[in-house]
Amino acid sequence: MKKASMSDKKAIVLSSGGIDSTTAMAIARAEGYALYSLTCNYGQRHASELEAAGRVANYFAVEKHLVIDMDLRAIGGSALTDNIDVPKNRRHDAILSGIPVTYVPARNTIFLSYALAWAEALQAPDIFIGVNAVDYSGYPDCRPEFIAAYERLANLAVKAAVEGQLVMKIRVPLIAMTKAKIIRTGISLGVDYSMTHSCYDPPEAGTACGLCDSCHLRRKGFREAGVPDPTHYAI
Amino acid sequence: MKKASMSDKKAIVLSSGGIDSTTAMAIARAEGYALYSLTCNYGQRHASELEAAGRVANYFAVEKHLVIDMDLRAIGGSALTDNIDVPKNRRHDAILSGIPVTYVPARNTIFLSYALAWAEALQAPDIFIGVNAVDYSGYPDCRPEFIAAYERLANLAVKAAVEGQLVMKIRVPLIAMTKAKIIRTGISLGVDYSMTHSCYDPPEAGTACGLCDSCHLRRKGFREAGVPDPTHYAI
Repeated sequence: MKKASMSDKKAIVLSSGGIDSTTAMAIARAEGYALYSLTCNYGQRHASELEAAGRVANYFAVEKHLVIDMDLRAIGGSALTDNIDVPKNRRHDAILSGIPVTYVPARNTIFLSYALAWAEALQAPDIFIGVNAVDYSGYPDCRPEFIAAYERLANLAVKAAVEGQLVMKIRVPLIAMTKAKIIRTGISLGVDYSMTHSCYDPPEAGTACGLCDSCHLRRKGFREAGVPDPTHYAI
Repeated sequence: MKKASMSDKKAIVLSSGGIDSTTAMAIARAEGYALYSLTCNYGQRHASELEAAGRVANYFAVEKHLVIDMDLRAIGGSALTDNIDVPKNRRHDAILSGIPVTYVPARNTIFLSYALAWAEALQAPDIFIGVNAVDYSGYPDCRPEFIAAYERLANLAVKAAVEGQLVMKIRVPLIAMTKAKIIRTGISLGVDYSMTHSCYDPPEAGTACGLCDSCHLRRKGFREAGVPDPTHYAI
């Protein structure tokens, strides 16, 4: 995909290599931003995320792709960083009720904090994050009230905002979309979702288990969008 | 220093090995908390901080001392992480006016985010941070309004708070104290400040330049507290 032509509007986009952050990136590109993608290597068991985020950065020809290492394993408290089984084969209503063991303590708070630091260093006040509070796993740090509180904090936290040079914005274009709507939006913007990865527990590189909550939501999204699902599911 | 006797009140204390965080730790100990110290290795040029934080953790016999590596050098934007000269020999009124180049983008926001994650993992809702908005360098993320916004965010961010099991608190016992008052408080609680480190640009391990803003505030604090300053200043 071509770069935006010499845009001086810069956006930080948090990128996990999944459907949501990739769609958020496509939206930022469509709005004319020069893109700076930030991926967090937090000791997640599904390191395929990092490879997918690299593919997405190449696809969008971002100005810079920054991978930050952060050792959330040292902190623990999640099936995604600890030696705890990832739930499989859960029903849709079970996924939407309650907060599962794949929750990572303060994950988006930490990710956004790095994005905020980079946003200030680059003088790029718009931070895109692909959170979604419809077809999601109930994580508290995906909800609109969390995002609003973070944006308020951001404007009290950094020098450039406090001194009035920048107004920090946390942009959440997907917050109220279903997964199907997200996929349709991305496709209308030219996204090839075969480069993305969603599975929490891939059996091998380049595949998906087909049974975890994330695979479930992905599959259902493609089915409801009426779009072929390019994912290689094991089951 | 002896441990609190089997306290089941746990506190996370952000520790930089300096006067303020060490005093905050002494206050948490005096309030009967079992202590969990968290030190951030963020690529600061003054790595003496990390050694001091280790000494402080030993001194207080904390339950656990966690050092988290975070590469803020990759983000840049500060004299403390980049190859930018640290200001020297500034007058006190100059230090108190404006935000200097030693400011690190979103530093306390990032530190608190890790503390929040650890607090949830440990079920320890009290997070102590030794910020101070009197004898300080004007950093926006040391001000009471930043802390209040962070506390509000914290209670929207993590599962344990959203589900009503914990009320996250950002404890700032030093926020309104002068440096002299902080030092007198610490001494009344038995703190030996010779184990602490403040200098932004130490000429060699175990010494202080005597000229940076941090050395200035430290020296002035001891002088005004009427307490001998144990620091080995080069000048």
